[in-house]
Amino acid sequence: MTGRLSNKKEKSIIEAARKRFAHYGFSKVTMEEIATDVEMGKASLYYYFTTKERLFQAVIAVEQQEFVREVESILQKNILAAQKLHEYVGKRLRYFQELLNLGTLSVHSFFNIKSVFKKSFNNFEKQELLLLTRILSEGRATKEFNNKLPKETAIVLLHILQGLRLRTLKKIKGQQLDEKSYKNLQKEMTLAIDIFIKGIKR
Amino acid sequence: MTGRLSNKKEKSIIEAARKRFAHYGFSKVTMEEIATDVEMGKASLYYYFTTKERLFQAVIAVEQQEFVREVESILQKNILAAQKLHEYVGKRLRYFQELLNLGTLSVHSFFNIKSVFKKSFNNFEKQELLLLTRILSEGRATKEFNNKLPKETAIVLLHILQGLRLRTLKKIKGQQLDEKSYKNLQKEMTLAIDIFIKGIKR
Repeated sequence: MTGRLSNKKEKSIIEAARKRFAHYGFSKVTMEEIATDVEMGKASLYYYFTTKERLFQAVIAVEQQEFVREVESILQKNILAAQKLHEYVGKRLRYFQELLNLGTLSVHSFFNIKSVFKKSFNNFEKQELLLLTRILSEGRATKEFNNKLPKETAIVLLHILQGLRLRTLKKIKGQQLDEKSYKNLQKEMTLAIDIFIKGIKR
Repeated sequence: MTGRLSNKKEKSIIEAARKRFAHYGFSKVTMEEIATDVEMGKASLYYYFTTKERLFQAVIAVEQQEFVREVESILQKNILAAQKLHEYVGKRLRYFQELLNLGTLSVHSFFNIKSVFKKSFNNFEKQELLLLTRILSEGRATKEFNNKLPKETAIVLLHILQGLRLRTLKKIKGQQLDEKSYKNLQKEMTLAIDIFIKGIKR
């Protein structure tokens, strides 16, 4: 992927696609429109990305890399591990909203089976798990937390957050995430992480 | 519903259906088989339940009532509120497994839209929420917990547990819940509730 992304033309295509998807959602955007945005013929665009799905995949990959970088920078901060967890949860929630704006809901159905896409989400999950484990281990090392199993605790926290998002997705059923549902989810996640942090504090 | 269930014949039908569904799953059982089990003609069975879905609904209603009764009896026990939460989580997990055995996964797709069925699940959720709120309020009254918002805390806990179940369902994708996934979910829920309880303890 890195080799592909280092290509300047590809980068500009991905950026144009990202803007379109974020504004209209995956299903409402055509390759033609993206080609026009980057002043390119449709045929040339297809040379870089053989399908709209592959282009979407590239957009998601870039978003994931950005998210991971942002969380990495949270990890570098000179703040308590509890505060890092809070910032992570906030950032993760906004990232979730961004994915929905891009149109992951409408993509989900037919991407469900495509293993390449699934693999990239699985890799991302692994990265997230590593980041969370690092925060928890750090909190343990500084005696801020007393959780004896940082990895298992990170898995549970990851799954709790996933579960709350999944519940919201199920509730809105393929619709866009409205402001109210987003606020609700945010409120729930904040309360959940507050209780969670107290639960692992020394 | 109570009027219907007080009918002896209907009760025996529901019990026969429950056994069949629990053993073979909803989609693999025919009305003919259930009719035979209760020594009744197929036509007579249809007099009581006009569709297999309606019969299933009655089975689920009975299961829900039983679950609520069992949790009520946990609430009566002379044990710490934390222990009540633990027992609730364990019982809820077994109830979840039971629903899957009955075939709720295969039912889910075409029941998705039927509002009657949805309503009974929504009612059940409300009952669960009340039970959890009672445990949390009790724990607060005895100064075992320090959570200031018993109802909001109960909602978050309910949603965390729902989310973890949903995640598992998504992972097994319409398959039966195998022993390994069940054990995993159980392990996760136990860790989650342990941390949660510590997080709300005084």
